[in-house]
This record gives sequence, structure tokens and C-alpha cells, in this order.
Amino acid sequence: MTSSLRVLGIDPGLTRCGVGVVDVDRSRRGTLVHVGVIRSSPDAEIGDRLAIVAAGIREVIAEYRPDAVAVERVFAQQNTHTVMGTAQASGVALLIAAESGLPAATHTPSEVKAAVTGYGSADKRQVQAMIARILRLDAPPQPADAADALAIALCHAWRRGGAVATQGALTPAQRAWAAAERVART
Amino acid sequence: MTSSLRVLGIDPGLTRCGVGVVDVDRSRRGTLVHVGVIRSSPDAEIGDRLAIVAAGIREVIAEYRPDAVAVERVFAQQNTHTVMGTAQASGVALLIAAESGLPAATHTPSEVKAAVTGYGSADKRQVQAMIARILRLDAPPQPADAADALAIALCHAWRRGGAVATQGALTPAQRAWAAAERVART
Repeated sequence: MTSSLRVLGIDPGLTRCGVGVVDVDRSRRGTLVHVGVIRSSPDAEIGDRLAIVAAGIREVIAEYRPDAVAVERVFAQQNTHTVMGTAQASGVALLIAAESGLPAATHTPSEVKAAVTGYGSADKRQVQAMIARILRLDAPPQPADAADALAIALCHAWRRGGAVATQGALTPAQRAWAAAERVART
Repeated sequence: MTSSLRVLGIDPGLTRCGVGVVDVDRSRRGTLVHVGVIRSSPDAEIGDRLAIVAAGIREVIAEYRPDAVAVERVFAQQNTHTVMGTAQASGVALLIAAESGLPAATHTPSEVKAAVTGYGSADKRQVQAMIARILRLDAPPQPADAADALAIALCHAWRRGGAVATQGALTPAQRAWAAAERVART
């Protein structure tokens, strides 16, 4: 039995809010605990949609009792049509983490992509594929928001653990990617 | 005794979140019930700041029991340095309204300014001056965020009451402004 860190990753959103829980052990090995998507209808009132997101996150925290929460950071530069709703959902996620007494952090999309694929501009399909490999899943998590939530959780656990990429050293993701490529070639 | 509508107006923000409660009677006359500013330190964690905003809003709702909540709408086009925090605070405000079972609405800054000054591009000083006149206060509410919160509440009460400006008709704000100008001239 090694002590592990349990992280809840949240990909904030109103229509789809990804939630993923992973355990990461001291050797940086990640294991899937839970993954899901909280959905709310675009026809509902904004307050009711945020309440659905809040209830869903509280439920995951109550059931899986993470040690920390990581939320993807939202930028104003992104798609302005949905960015305000995404920012509001991220605020709700950070509020619930704080009210649950859990440490919370935000990570940028490029930090998350770099952590799991070794490449800050990776596309959604690459992230999904790497998440499946890192967590030893039979298939990539669906939809992309679910994979993103797991990627955010892994990014947080690895960064928190001091797994900062240095020249000449591989990040855990780069090692996993290299291993996966070796497997794919055999 | 006429039945009146009690509205909580919220000017969302992290460093300063304005909260104002007004009663508006059937003749559209507004009366100040409460005004304040919830403050959180820029040095605090974002989740803790949002929790302070949430606690402050819950306290106002518990103490003054408004019938409705109105929140100023945040746009991505605004100052990008603070817009995400403002959007997150607005999400928290809308969440708490929904979880308190209160109807909530958002109004744009220009709707709010037009409602209280008759002019959608009014500056902060004009809004503060008009709020003092409309609510019969001895001095303009300070800081501007407090006056804005009251303006949002009045905007909501008047719009909800069907006080839509039509050509040839004055809004309640325009009538109040005209009356205030008559008083100032005497």
C-alpha cells in the first residue's frame, strides 16, 4: 500500500461539465476512480444550470472524497459566445472546492495538454488517446470533456508532485507516450 | 399599505461586490432597504474569494428576504484582466439565487444606466447622483459599486413592472430625472 493523491479534475461548462477523479501514487502512476459529465439544458435558466453543475460537483466530492480539486482555466480570448457561461461554471467549481475545504488550483489548457501528451497544442483526440493509455483503459473516455477532466486531474497531480519537465528529463506523460509508442510498434 | 417588490441587485466582483436591496411599490417608487459592498483580498485564493462573496450574498438574502435577484451581465469585451473574476463572481451570485429559490435575471450595464438616468452611456457619477435622488438619500451611495447594485435592483423592478420605454413616453427614471432637474432649478 502506497499513499496516493486523489484529484478531482473539472473541465468547466454549462452544457457539458467534465468531472474526472484519479488516484496518483508516489511513482506517479495514475488510476481511474470516476469519470462523468454533468449536463444542463441550454433552455434552462442560467441560475438553474449553475445549480445543476454545483449539485453534480458536490455529489462527486461527497462520494469520492478527493484530496484536491483542479479546474481548467478559462480565458476571455476563447469563443466569446460560450466563454461567460464557462467562466461562471468555473467560479461555481472553485467555490464548491473552497466550501468543501479542499485546496483548488487552475491550470491552462496548454499546461494540461503538455502534461499528458508532452505537447501543448495537442488536439482533443490525442488527449483522449493518451488518457486511455496513461490510465490503462480499453477505450478513450467519451465525450472529450470527460477525457479533459481526467487530463486536468493528472496534470495537477504531476505538477504538484514536482514533475516539472527539465532539459534531458522526460515528464511522466512523455515516458508514457514513449512506452505507448514502443507498444504500438510491436 | 401597497404591496411592493423587494429586489436584491448585485454588481459582481471579487475585490468589491456591490449588493443593494430596494423596495419598489406599485407606483414605482423605490425605497432603500440595504446597501453594502462585499470585499475580498486580491492576495487570497480565488476559491476563498468566491466563498466570501457567496457568504456575503447568502447573508443579505437571509436578512432582507428579497423577492428577486438581479445581477449585472458581464461581457468578455470588458477589461480582460479582471473580467474572468467578475464572471466567476456573477456565476456564484446566480447560483446562490437559484439555490435560495429566488428568480434571477441579468441586465446589461447600458440597460441599467438607461433605466436610472435615461441615458445608456451615463458615467458612474451620474448613476450615483440619480440613485441618491430616486431613493431620496442625503448623499450618493459610496463606493460606485454600491450605487451600481442599487441601480441594477431598480432597473430590474422597473423593467419587470413593464416600464418599457416607448416613443413619446418617459421611463420612471426619465420622470425622476426630470423631477430632480426641476427641483435643482428652484
